[in-house]
Amino acid sequence: MHTVKILPDDIEIKVKDNTDLLSAITDAGIYINSDCGGNGTCGKCKVIIKNGYVLSCQTNVTDDLVIEIPYSSRIEEIHALIDTAEQTQESVFAYQPLAKKVHLKLVQPSLENNIPDYERLKSKLEEKLSISNLKIGLSLLKALPHFLRKVEWDFTASLVESDGGYEFVQFEPGDRSKDIYGIALDIGTTTVVAYLVNLDSGKVHCAEATYNQQISLGQDVITRIMYSTEKKGLKKLSQMICNTINDLIAALVEKSGISQNDILAVQSAGNTTMIHLFLGINPEYIRKEPYIPVVNFPPVINAEELNIKINPRGTISCLPGVASYLGGDITAGVLASGMDRVEKASLLVDLGTNGEIVLGNSDWLVGCSCSAGPAFEGVGIKCGISAIDGAIQSIKIDNGEVTVSTINNKKPKGICGSGLIDIPAELLRNSIIDRSGKFRKESVKSNRLRKNEDDEYEFVIVSDKDSHIVITESDIATLLRSKGAVFLGMQVLLQEMKLKFEDIDRIYISGGFGTALDIGKAILIGLLPDLPDEKFSFIGNSSVAGAKICLLSKSAREKAKEIVGKMTYIDLSTNPKFMNEYTSTLFLPHTDIELFPTVKRKLGI
Amino acid sequence: MHTVKILPDDIEIKVKDNTDLLSAITDAGIYINSDCGGNGTCGKCKVIIKNGYVLSCQTNVTDDLVIEIPYSSRIEEIHALIDTAEQTQESVFAYQPLAKKVHLKLVQPSLENNIPDYERLKSKLEEKLSISNLKIGLSLLKALPHFLRKVEWDFTASLVESDGGYEFVQFEPGDRSKDIYGIALDIGTTTVVAYLVNLDSGKVHCAEATYNQQISLGQDVITRIMYSTEKKGLKKLSQMICNTINDLIAALVEKSGISQNDILAVQSAGNTTMIHLFLGINPEYIRKEPYIPVVNFPPVINAEELNIKINPRGTISCLPGVASYLGGDITAGVLASGMDRVEKASLLVDLGTNGEIVLGNSDWLVGCSCSAGPAFEGVGIKCGISAIDGAIQSIKIDNGEVTVSTINNKKPKGICGSGLIDIPAELLRNSIIDRSGKFRKESVKSNRLRKNEDDEYEFVIVSDKDSHIVITESDIATLLRSKGAVFLGMQVLLQEMKLKFEDIDRIYISGGFGTALDIGKAILIGLLPDLPDEKFSFIGNSSVAGAKICLLSKSAREKAKEIVGKMTYIDLSTNPKFMNEYTSTLFLPHTDIELFPTVKRKLGI
Repeated sequence: MHTVKILPDDIEIKVKDNTDLLSAITDAGIYINSDCGGNGTCGKCKVIIKNGYVLSCQTNVTDDLVIEIPYSSRIEEIHALIDTAEQTQESVFAYQPLAKKVHLKLVQPSLENNIPDYERLKSKLEEKLSISNLKIGLSLLKALPHFLRKVEWDFTASLVESDGGYEFVQFEPGDRSKDIYGIALDIGTTTVVAYLVNLDSGKVHCAEATYNQQISLGQDVITRIMYSTEKKGLKKLSQMICNTINDLIAALVEKSGISQNDILAVQSAGNTTMIHLFLGINPEYIRKEPYIPVVNFPPVINAEELNIKINPRGTISCLPGVASYLGGDITAGVLASGMDRVEKASLLVDLGTNGEIVLGNSDWLVGCSCSAGPAFEGVGIKCGISAIDGAIQSIKIDNGEVTVSTINNKKPKGICGSGLIDIPAELLRNSIIDRSGKFRKESVKSNRLRKNEDDEYEFVIVSDKDSHIVITESDIATLLRSKGAVFLGMQVLLQEMKLKFEDIDRIYISGGFGTALDIGKAILIGLLPDLPDEKFSFIGNSSVAGAKICLLSKSAREKAKEIVGKMTYIDLSTNPKFMNEYTSTLFLPHTDIELFPTVKRKLGI
Repeated sequence: MHTVKILPDDIEIKVKDNTDLLSAITDAGIYINSDCGGNGTCGKCKVIIKNGYVLSCQTNVTDDLVIEIPYSSRIEEIHALIDTAEQTQESVFAYQPLAKKVHLKLVQPSLENNIPDYERLKSKLEEKLSISNLKIGLSLLKALPHFLRKVEWDFTASLVESDGGYEFVQFEPGDRSKDIYGIALDIGTTTVVAYLVNLDSGKVHCAEATYNQQISLGQDVITRIMYSTEKKGLKKLSQMICNTINDLIAALVEKSGISQNDILAVQSAGNTTMIHLFLGINPEYIRKEPYIPVVNFPPVINAEELNIKINPRGTISCLPGVASYLGGDITAGVLASGMDRVEKASLLVDLGTNGEIVLGNSDWLVGCSCSAGPAFEGVGIKCGISAIDGAIQSIKIDNGEVTVSTINNKKPKGICGSGLIDIPAELLRNSIIDRSGKFRKESVKSNRLRKNEDDEYEFVIVSDKDSHIVITESDIATLLRSKGAVFLGMQVLLQEMKLKFEDIDRIYISGGFGTALDIGKAILIGLLPDLPDEKFSFIGNSSVAGAKICLLSKSAREKAKEIVGKMTYIDLSTNPKFMNEYTSTLFLPHTDIELFPTVKRKLGI
């Protein structure tokens, strides 16, 4: 065993001989960047030993050590914006939350009214809630006779939804009917977002977001699935996501001052792999032909069984998914957008760690996953970061002058999704790059364009004594591949249904962008189709929004099942059209400029 | 600690100083008689120390000891007759057992048929069984992907009924669809009977019966409830009944050579107190005004939670009861008799540890419990025993000659229920007792009638070198109180419904009597009403028979709920008619001889 002292935190940890530093730091509870999952290729996990930088994933501890983790390597708090976009959809669904607390005053038994304790309780509740399917576990039933007499028949019963009915999970003295909470959860590959929702009022109390701890083991679902097949890999990944969720819940509990025991339900949404890993279910067949999950409709699980730190008798529900690469997060998105309840066709474009697209209306739905990669989450981009304080969310270039705006106006730290859409658009508009995304090295006269230590051209966005933020030529190529895959996904779905972009009534954009996304620039780079501004709606994080709706409404939960039943999954990886047309999209905005008439006009092509 | 050596078993046990011998012997796994529950009043727990008899319940161990437990103090194996009486009722109910095994061969997944593992399994089963409400627990779901591929999609799924649908509980390779069993259980205050039923064929495989271990703590439910309020009393009683049931199951498993793991469901029936104690639910409010149970419809419990030794994921169901003193055993009896499905009124007379009576037809049911005590089970009668080998089951007295017949023609050991009905009838017919149940000491010239060591008159039934079996005057008084309470119960129910005995189409007699019960003699003593022979049906142990029907049929389980919903409980203890008319019944056959015209004629009164 060796001692590793971590600065500036001043934490000392004991590690086994030959442990890699990345694991040691992660185990110490410090999150650091590692896009490549410890392969030594992304260069983001740098730490300082004595006088030099090393990659922590490539450095094994063989002696006592003092290390410093620089600011740039650390993963910081992500902002979770509470979306209000879903409010309109919520009112569509009848209020019937996953858990209830009901204050009851029972008539005391007498010779004339001598029904048993449990049937007395049950009939009162059935009358009050107009429900018939109530059940109780043995341990709670055993406690009932003493409890009822101690509280003199005045108490609050807690219930959770179970197999279409409700199950008793707790009895408390007096009236505690307003102290009931649920968690709406978006389990993303990169980030995890949680809302604390009061189930009596239906209002969001507060929200928290954090990185998925699993990112230290790889940035995408394929890397995670591969890791899960290693010895104890599945268990570790499962623990990591549960720890992440428990950290969020602990933060919500602390922030709100409520009791953890008053949280009675978690409604989660996530992609199929994340849900498998969350539940500890082997995901390996997701990436082996014929690419099937173990389950699309996971059962409701007891919180205690998953070790999720809410009331131990509370429940964990997962929104159903459609296929291996079209998960419950997309079901949630469709639900939150309401696109399945209107006659005219709409598109849902979810720009998360992957890109998923759904096309449809009240009669039909088709969906695909387009392997866009996590570029728009800042992953795989040299100075890319998540939407944290100081993230550059928008960029303007005029006459060689670069103006940036950052989240909460903090010192710039890196570029997040919306900024990464602005950059190629502004570079193209200013003729700094050409339509293939290459720098016009010859014609551009700017000291911002230069070669870096890797002998690659990069454009400097910000450079001062604190920050040095650039975009490299390969970053732009990565962004082009991402935007191309998303655009092509839309095209394939439209072709499948014999529709054109003009037939689309509305395009819902979901993801962590918030309102910072500039639609005009997203069209300019060819990420979004060339349609009038008013056809686009930002619906924010539609995964957590859909989860919240389901937390509060049984008819929404039924609707989610209906959505899954109705949706046809189009597998792009086995679709020949996809490979043929992909290269056409790797151009700004597209090889076929006629698809983007306003861009053609604007750029004077 | 002291050492107690038990002879002739040659067992040595260690006991704490001052432990009473009865507890020590029971803990050693030897069942001995103790009707009074250790109060020192019944005199049945005699053991031999050095040269003399002591009551084991009144003797504390203060030193190392050698004791001998005589044959007469031991409790022996009870005969469980497999009743076939219920066969006719069974065919009324559709076959849908509490658990199923289904052999499945699934189509292997392919790119064209890529639904997930669990949904693949589920849809096949739903198609095969025409059911829709299937669920699965997380641990089984986790095991599914590896299992399905290992067995090449050819396997047997086990399911148990759960909340109106079915839940997966086990997967096994290949076809094991015929290897599925359930237990039908009658949990009596004195005896417990279990049938092993093949749930594929619906046939009873074998049966076992034994004493309820709790009898060492008291003979009736009231004594047990009182014991349950003592420290650790409830836990001990609960363990005792679970041990009794596990002993029966172990015996059935051994006898049949099946695997314990293939038993997937237990359907039990018992009186309300027994069911509370079985489930570990506090029964104390059953005997405190207003005399209410905790629950009439107990939830289905996991076998593991109750530590019942069947498949740990199997289920334990209890037939619903009507009231504190009208339990699920009576619901089972009504179900087994079919009296709730015919237009004409019938009576069900259940002569167990208590006496319960139901009157009704397809429109209505009324029931009562008549505090008859356990006399007809041989309890509280000097030479009374259960229906074990050597029990005197019928007696004839002619010209002073006494002829007895014993179970399995073994040497007479005591008198069981049917014998105890014959005795007062024969004594009355031979003018040895008068109509008040007293010996005609002056007029009877027989050396069989004599005074015993307690200065009480008794009549010797058998006396040879091995056996000395008598009936005392107080035994006869006890039997009169019992038969009187039962008869009065019938009268009260009939009065309640403004009916007469002549209006009754059929009287179902249930209890452990078997066919040995002589109806004529039961009428002669006034236990049963004076109606033609053909109106009486023996239905044996209707509690286990009803449990068996419910084990096999969902519509029977629904019917049981209906029966409970339909039945009105008449509380005799608060009924003034009862107290006034009770004394009239303490006569042979009754104070009002006009109620028994054939007896009047026969005896020439």
